Amino acid sequence: MKPDKLTMSLLLDQYGALLTEKQRDCFDLYCNQDLTLAEIAELMGTSRQGVHDAVTRAEAQLLRYEEVTDSLARERRDLKIAEALESLAASLQGMSRRETEDALLTAAAALRQS
Amino acid sequence: MKPDKLTMSLLLDQYGALLTEKQRDCFDLYCNQDLTLAEIAELMGTSRQGVHDAVTRAEAQLLRYEEVTDSLARERRDLKIAEALESLAASLQGMSRRETEDALLTAAAALRQS
Repeated sequence: MKPDKLTMSLLLDQYGALLTEKQRDCFDLYCNQDLTLAEIAELMGTSRQGVHDAVTRAEAQLLRYEEVTDSLARERRDLKIAEALESLAASLQGMSRRETEDALLTAAAALRQS
Repeated sequence: MKPDKLTMSLLLDQYGALLTEKQRDCFDLYCNQDLTLAEIAELMGTSRQGVHDAVTRAEAQLLRYEEVTDSLARERRDLKIAEALESLAASLQGMSRRETEDALLTAAAALRQS
């Protein structure tokens, strides 16, 4: 499945520094500014085919970086666990020690998953 | 500072799939099997200079991947937070609600740091 533009934009934030400048610029205009390939080509004074190649290559590389490092997925997961811990902190009063312990061990187990 | 071979070996585990096969093989023999460049060259039937280039390039790329994604550092940090949560779970009995709350919020804040 082709990822949506929001996901691609997040991947660009995460791994953009690993792309060439041309790939990064084309891909930014494509997924953050929502320009067409023809518009980007005109803006950058290059061919539509050149822009197409840069965007296609950038997309493949960004997806490959995420496939190998899982960096964006891990960041999202960490934020969810942070929210769960904050919510646990806010509701300690109504919980038994056993329930708190279980919640802590669940969060720890999630963090240990690589 | 040049990273030690253990760190480079961990970086190879993390990002090795992004290297070329030759880079990966040379770098594995260099940092996991501790062979010299000359020994690797003989083993792989290539020149010492070729091995030197592959190892140097692999090292630079692995460090760059980590610089950009922070993936290994984040994994190490997550393991430390998991340990802290497990240790908190084991010592809930002796702690006040306020202390537990503080420990949870500290862990959540650490996870929110990107």
